Amino acid sequence: SSGLKIVSANKQFSAQLGGRVEVHGAVYNDDGINMGDGTTLRRARIYVKGKLYDDWQYKFEYDFAASDLKGVKDAYLSYRLKEGTELIAGNYRVPYSLEALASSHANTFMERSLGFAFKPGWHLGAGANLSGANWTWNTGVFGDTADQNTAGEDGEWIVGSRLTWLPYQANSSLVHLGIAGLYGDRGDHSDMTYKSGPESKVTKINLVDTKKITGVDSYSQTGLEAALTLNRFNLQAEYMAATLRRGEGDLNFDGWYIQSSYFLTADSRSYKKGRYAPVKPRSILGRNGIGAWELAVRLSEVDLSDADIFGGQQQDLTLGLNVYATPQIRFSAEYIEVLATSNPKTAEPELFQLRAEWVL
Amino acid sequence: SSGLKIVSANKQFSAQLGGRVEVHGAVYNDDGINMGDGTTLRRARIYVKGKLYDDWQYKFEYDFAASDLKGVKDAYLSYRLKEGTELIAGNYRVPYSLEALASSHANTFMERSLGFAFKPGWHLGAGANLSGANWTWNTGVFGDTADQNTAGEDGEWIVGSRLTWLPYQANSSLVHLGIAGLYGDRGDHSDMTYKSGPESKVTKINLVDTKKITGVDSYSQTGLEAALTLNRFNLQAEYMAATLRRGEGDLNFDGWYIQSSYFLTADSRSYKKGRYAPVKPRSILGRNGIGAWELAVRLSEVDLSDADIFGGQQQDLTLGLNVYATPQIRFSAEYIEVLATSNPKTAEPELFQLRAEWVL
Amino acid sequence: SSGLKIVSANKQFSAQLGGRVEVHGAVYNDDGINMGDGTTLRRARIYVKGKLYDDWQYKFEYDFAASDLKGVKDAYLSYRLKEGTELIAGNYRVPYSLEALASSHANTFMERSLGFAFKPGWHLGAGANLSGANWTWNTGVFGDTADQNTAGEDGEWIVGSRLTWLPYQANSSLVHLGIAGLYGDRGDHSDMTYKSGPESKVTKINLVDTKKITGVDSYSQTGLEAALTLNRFNLQAEYMAATLRRGEGDLNFDGWYIQSSYFLTADSRSYKKGRYAPVKPRSILGRNGIGAWELAVRLSEVDLSDADIFGGQQQDLTLGLNVYATPQIRFSAEYIEVLATSNPKTAEPELFQLRAEWVL
Repeated sequence: SSGLKIVSANKQFSAQLGGRVEVHGAVYNDDGINMGDGTTLRRARIYVKGKLYDDWQYKFEYDFAASDLKGVKDAYLSYRLKEGTELIAGNYRVPYSLEALASSHANTFMERSLGFAFKPGWHLGAGANLSGANWTWNTGVFGDTADQNTAGEDGEWIVGSRLTWLPYQANSSLVHLGIAGLYGDRGDHSDMTYKSGPESKVTKINLVDTKKITGVDSYSQTGLEAALTLNRFNLQAEYMAATLRRGEGDLNFDGWYIQSSYFLTADSRSYKKGRYAPVKPRSILGRNGIGAWELAVRLSEVDLSDADIFGGQQQDLTLGLNVYATPQIRFSAEYIEVLATSNPKTAEPELFQLRAEWVL
Repeated sequence: SSGLKIVSANKQFSAQLGGRVEVHGAVYNDDGINMGDGTTLRRARIYVKGKLYDDWQYKFEYDFAASDLKGVKDAYLSYRLKEGTELIAGNYRVPYSLEALASSHANTFMERSLGFAFKPGWHLGAGANLSGANWTWNTGVFGDTADQNTAGEDGEWIVGSRLTWLPYQANSSLVHLGIAGLYGDRGDHSDMTYKSGPESKVTKINLVDTKKITGVDSYSQTGLEAALTLNRFNLQAEYMAATLRRGEGDLNFDGWYIQSSYFLTADSRSYKKGRYAPVKPRSILGRNGIGAWELAVRLSEVDLSDADIFGGQQQDLTLGLNVYATPQIRFSAEYIEVLATSNPKTAEPELFQLRAEWVL
Repeated sequence: SSGLKIVSANKQFSAQLGGRVEVHGAVYNDDGINMGDGTTLRRARIYVKGKLYDDWQYKFEYDFAASDLKGVKDAYLSYRLKEGTELIAGNYRVPYSLEALASSHANTFMERSLGFAFKPGWHLGAGANLSGANWTWNTGVFGDTADQNTAGEDGEWIVGSRLTWLPYQANSSLVHLGIAGLYGDRGDHSDMTYKSGPESKVTKINLVDTKKITGVDSYSQTGLEAALTLNRFNLQAEYMAATLRRGEGDLNFDGWYIQSSYFLTADSRSYKKGRYAPVKPRSILGRNGIGAWELAVRLSEVDLSDADIFGGQQQDLTLGLNVYATPQIRFSAEYIEVLATSNPKTAEPELFQLRAEWVL
């Protein structure tokens, strides 16, 4: 339906060019700290993906957005050994967290929750992705990120695994459960940082931030996921925790969110292989339809303070409205109330933000 | 004719990959200042654009040229409410100036005129583009540019509008009139700069330059446009003026150009919706033809000095030759005589420059 | 077979999107210097190329890999005057060296040899590419690289020429001979540097490095090439030498390599117009085949010390294994023994590296 795609006559080969653009605008009621109202090009991704000899697949994706957001995203090659068994190598997301792995086009809110501080993101690695009718199990070994470029330092190594299960699935309804864990050896990169913005990325300010934690030898993270989709209604929650090991004693940080959404129109969320997929509205805005309309609420929290590290705590309450104009186009509006306590200061900004998002 | 394009059977969907590359080389007779002879990759743009459900259109374009020239260009989504009424959002050019809005592939000279100092360029925004058989009226509200990324500063806001009218139009002839205005609130970005190079971008030197003007609260710009195309003959002129408001008193700068061109072959310029479009030569170089040949002359001026700001005055006289080999390929040669007076020094370089330009 | 390609019905026009991704991982037995084990995204190139009116061709390629590797690669326009006579302009490789000009997908080893210190690489220029049934002769005049952006400095100028000859060619066998020379005037860029890593690019360390050589007016380089392909067996050698002219006296540096490979499967290398081309395996891994398997050995040396410049000497011995899974996909493993003598220290790291490489 969208993008440039070519499929060979025998269907063994295909190649596709696509992408995704997001523009955000935000106004902050600043509460003593200047967050910086304005607009930003949040994502501007172009990808090429394809299939070779039926069983080989590749994808390459780059984000052209401004400075700290730009860079290589997916850049992997995979091989289907047999149905439900795929080997993969290249730059891809460490398997961890329901909302971290879903496309921003498939997540309910404009930004991922506060616990996204723990996102491992994309790393160069290799692994196996197994799946059955109602489960997935992805495991990989990873090295550096694609933009790490440090001379004379041994890179980091991560082992990560995620298991998901659908105890119930029928038509537009499902129950999802997931558990993930990862262990990281920092190699010569002994500094680590966890931080979170106010679930809004127009501002570059992170209200909670551990700053550079030195002398970290290794770390581990665990994640728990639960989600329920009942036709128009959705409920989704995750808990994430991290332990950092260093000479001065371990550090423990954690975060969680719980969110719910309801479609005002006769629409529902899509789901595929352990991840939510983009909503396909039943009617098209501008073709005698109004698209899909969804109301959503989320409560999220993160705690980045432990021992001598005062990263702070933060709680956000978000109310959101999504209008899915077509399967490729979405508009969002959100109101967020923030309560962030760092040491020693407290900030309680409110914010209102808008998004236009479209798939190329 | 060019690029990768796919159209769906019902013509409601399309997707296209294209681009444009320009290589420039220049030699400067330096007159006491080393301008820097050499070659440069002036533009290297790739875009993806498409149509969804007939009425939605998108475009994403990135320039891969060297450092200060690279970045996101068009990145917008538009919706045709009805014939002649289009809503648009994303990163696109603030509607201002005939030559600023035309593609470099459609402008007569290798670089835009000295008054291009006043170009607002691309900003994130939203607006309405209205048009009739012989007029266009584009208005938008804009925020930051796509590469602005300033933490803790409120962004700028611009309101811009441009009206164009064709009092006469017949076959390959037309009279174009245009007027544009914009008002900008600088938010927390209280610094502004206007500058111009010698209508040559191989050198990075700007002979006139206001340098950083501090404490600017708001600014406004006006523009007047007139153009005449009579088959092979063209005459085109613009006047641009800017007023900056600050505590120490207002500043006024302005610029203008007048240019004429004549096709030696039986060709003429194209025009579409308030902008000149790329020339389509009647014969193809290398397919029993010689392409289209065009001689051109331009006089331009800019004044960037007022009150305590000594940005300087500059006048350029340009003689140019364009060879449009095919609709996608153009070669240009230009001789420019510069007279630039900054405070306190005067520079009068001459320069000769060549361009090869092709559309992907 | 791969990529997005469209050809017009009359075959006069075509357009294609393609690319190439390489992921490398390496472990170093460091011998007193921390080389930095890890992984890297070595190449991530996307290109658009096409044909217009049969005789015009263009290509634009960008590398999205990390910092020092990213940038514009091919960005040229060419015109076929007649069979075997092509004019070319834009950003393209100065004609020099058999392995420097071949695609990394076509070279036998993961990295080019130590003498790649002398690679001129891509420059903006124009030239003529002549060829006959068993010879090629490419000559061009070049200016700066596409990412040079130095204000107020005259750029460099290079004249380069390369002649290749196939005294013998039959089925899968050939003898290749080549000679190349280039002369460079440094313009206002009077600094030059030659350096080489350990034929491994996960580490950013260059064991031999002239550092900045100042006051260079001009330089010249010569290259000699010989290669033999006899069905499964290959032998290839090159000698490269550089002379730098400066006030304090000339400097002379040189390098060479000799390599051999043998296919365990019934495969052989491809060759086209003076360059080796990517191997096309006879059987496909995953389609009832095992791909093409190739064993390889290389000895290489570079000498970057002369007069007052102590860049050092280096010798590398490499053993390699290539598995060409499909025409688009290759895996490589290499063991390299390094002997590098700079002044005053000596480093003898061993290293083991792996590569996955695929064409989009």
